[in-house]
Amino acid sequence: MKSRAAVAFGPGEPLKIVEVDVEPPKKGEVLIKISHTGVCHTDAFTLSGSDPEGVFPVILGHEGAGVVVEVGEGVTSVKAGDHVIPLYTAECGECLFCKSGKTNLCVAVRETQGKGLMPDGTTRFSYNGQPIYHYMGCSTFSEYTVVAEVSLAKINPEANPEHVCLLGCGVTTGIGAVHNTAKVQEGDSVAVFGLGGIGLAVIQGARQAKAGRIIAIDTNPEKFVLAKEFGATDFLNPQDFDKPIQNVIVEMTGWGVDHSFECIGNVNVMRSALECAHRGWGQSVIIGVAGAGQEISTRPFQLVTGRKWLGSAFGGVKGRSQLPDMVEDAMQGKIQLKPFVTHTMDLEKINEAFDLMHEGKSIRTVIHYT
Amino acid sequence: MKSRAAVAFGPGEPLKIVEVDVEPPKKGEVLIKISHTGVCHTDAFTLSGSDPEGVFPVILGHEGAGVVVEVGEGVTSVKAGDHVIPLYTAECGECLFCKSGKTNLCVAVRETQGKGLMPDGTTRFSYNGQPIYHYMGCSTFSEYTVVAEVSLAKINPEANPEHVCLLGCGVTTGIGAVHNTAKVQEGDSVAVFGLGGIGLAVIQGARQAKAGRIIAIDTNPEKFVLAKEFGATDFLNPQDFDKPIQNVIVEMTGWGVDHSFECIGNVNVMRSALECAHRGWGQSVIIGVAGAGQEISTRPFQLVTGRKWLGSAFGGVKGRSQLPDMVEDAMQGKIQLKPFVTHTMDLEKINEAFDLMHEGKSIRTVIHYT
Repeated sequence: MKSRAAVAFGPGEPLKIVEVDVEPPKKGEVLIKISHTGVCHTDAFTLSGSDPEGVFPVILGHEGAGVVVEVGEGVTSVKAGDHVIPLYTAECGECLFCKSGKTNLCVAVRETQGKGLMPDGTTRFSYNGQPIYHYMGCSTFSEYTVVAEVSLAKINPEANPEHVCLLGCGVTTGIGAVHNTAKVQEGDSVAVFGLGGIGLAVIQGARQAKAGRIIAIDTNPEKFVLAKEFGATDFLNPQDFDKPIQNVIVEMTGWGVDHSFECIGNVNVMRSALECAHRGWGQSVIIGVAGAGQEISTRPFQLVTGRKWLGSAFGGVKGRSQLPDMVEDAMQGKIQLKPFVTHTMDLEKINEAFDLMHEGKSIRTVIHYT
Repeated sequence: MKSRAAVAFGPGEPLKIVEVDVEPPKKGEVLIKISHTGVCHTDAFTLSGSDPEGVFPVILGHEGAGVVVEVGEGVTSVKAGDHVIPLYTAECGECLFCKSGKTNLCVAVRETQGKGLMPDGTTRFSYNGQPIYHYMGCSTFSEYTVVAEVSLAKINPEANPEHVCLLGCGVTTGIGAVHNTAKVQEGDSVAVFGLGGIGLAVIQGARQAKAGRIIAIDTNPEKFVLAKEFGATDFLNPQDFDKPIQNVIVEMTGWGVDHSFECIGNVNVMRSALECAHRGWGQSVIIGVAGAGQEISTRPFQLVTGRKWLGSAFGGVKGRSQLPDMVEDAMQGKIQLKPFVTHTMDLEKINEAFDLMHEGKSIRTVIHYT
């Protein structure tokens, strides 16, 4: 079938809106009609060429909501008409990782997904007869996309897809990192580095957890408005100080914060986030994705004196088991999504969404297909 | 009073056995007659001049056992004749850290201890009228030493001091890191980097925890004999491979080990230890002490895919509360100490103990004062 799609033909090039060919779903696969998709920094990261796993031409997008159109052989967990969110972190329920009870990092489709392919090693997209790669198992920048059954969360059909599409990545990542990775407790202090969609979701999660002090850090003070609305109590612009921001935070808190979160992907900020953690027990969670080959560093003394350095992917959330409940939470107002949607537009204008993001003017732009 | 002591007059110089003057204990202090002391890599580290906190002249030694001779004003928890182990990690029971229930890193005497002084900012040792610094709050290389009351564990007087002095540092650090920091569970896989006293204690702790596979790693294969005796199941010499040892471990285990421990103080080995940890949940504990200014590095992807980087000081053990029970465990054979004591000698020969350690010929040399 034909589908409108925004194709990334090469690194650094604007996306081109074209009509691609989409093959029907094979065994264990599902064809989805996407209605809404967010545009995330990770899409921009891969588009820039910095992503070591990046392959081109590719259909980006991994933060979508849609409806099942057709299922392939053997698919039983969803049927045509079901409302779904595609998952870049699958949940097969059967691999070593799913069964461990310790992680959400399912490996069922990991190898092929990282290569931009479906689990059988081929692609369902083509343009003028040339194959186009999938992205993160989702490719939500195509109106019609094919995903693995294990990469689909079935959600309440009453949910507003313009909002809950954001649970496909950023908001879930931030809120999940607070609850699943850091396990923030009532009264804990928290520092959040970077107030984009993920950072704001971390603040929201910290407030849910009844954190005491929530310190919001960004070089763009315009971000503080929404951070405050979501529950941040303190606001720091590192450019206002002539010493490292971790020193500022340690001084203002006495010994540092119980939990810090890096929501940018900057390895220097990752160090600051670790070093502002409380002596004895503070922990720092890396959420942001750094460029290829970049490394984090610190003195081992930071760890020997009780700090822990962790990371979080998709907020530690198991998508098929847990995302449906998060959608319910959003419907009941326990998770606020509307404030994240600062812009909406048609697929044709998607390159403007990237511009807005790079200029720091948007939290999330949501693309409407309909 | 006069006391025999091995004094480090300057970095890199052999210790000199002299008679020093020891002042009586002040308020909150206790005078101890040390009967036995281990010689630890940390003593050698400070003696070398690499320790940023190192001050000279100093009486080193922090792994001792002895008997209380005299207590200063206000001391209630010990009295003359009590058998004790000096603690370089105090436990006041009243500071933010002691009360947190999350860490053993008491700060009661931290600042002065780091400067080689008693809590009132002065030293009790002198030689020919010149002050000599304390070390780690212990200075067990003096037959008579003064320590803070909060830095003393009162132990069973029936315990063999030649053995239980090792619970003052290395053995407690290794066993504690397994139980308190990593919390190794039955069946877990473990990798231990460096088979000195601490590494061997980690192996012993891992066997106590009923770990499944215990992989022992050292460039000196002679260390494998004792490692095997303590319970290691696999033995790797990194020099036998032409690829990074973390890759070897990941391949032999499938996805890496549940827990790894760095027991050397080498920042490159710290990286290997992290990177051989299991995707999704593996954790790596830094125990070794690196040289001044050295840094650890890795790609943040290692953490985002579920690995955790931690550290441990004195095995997370609260000395006054927990060390007496570990002494009981040793008396009941639940902790084996005798195999660690490869050499014993008089104080006069202490420089030979350092030589044996540097040559990799000893696990622990225990100095006998009597």
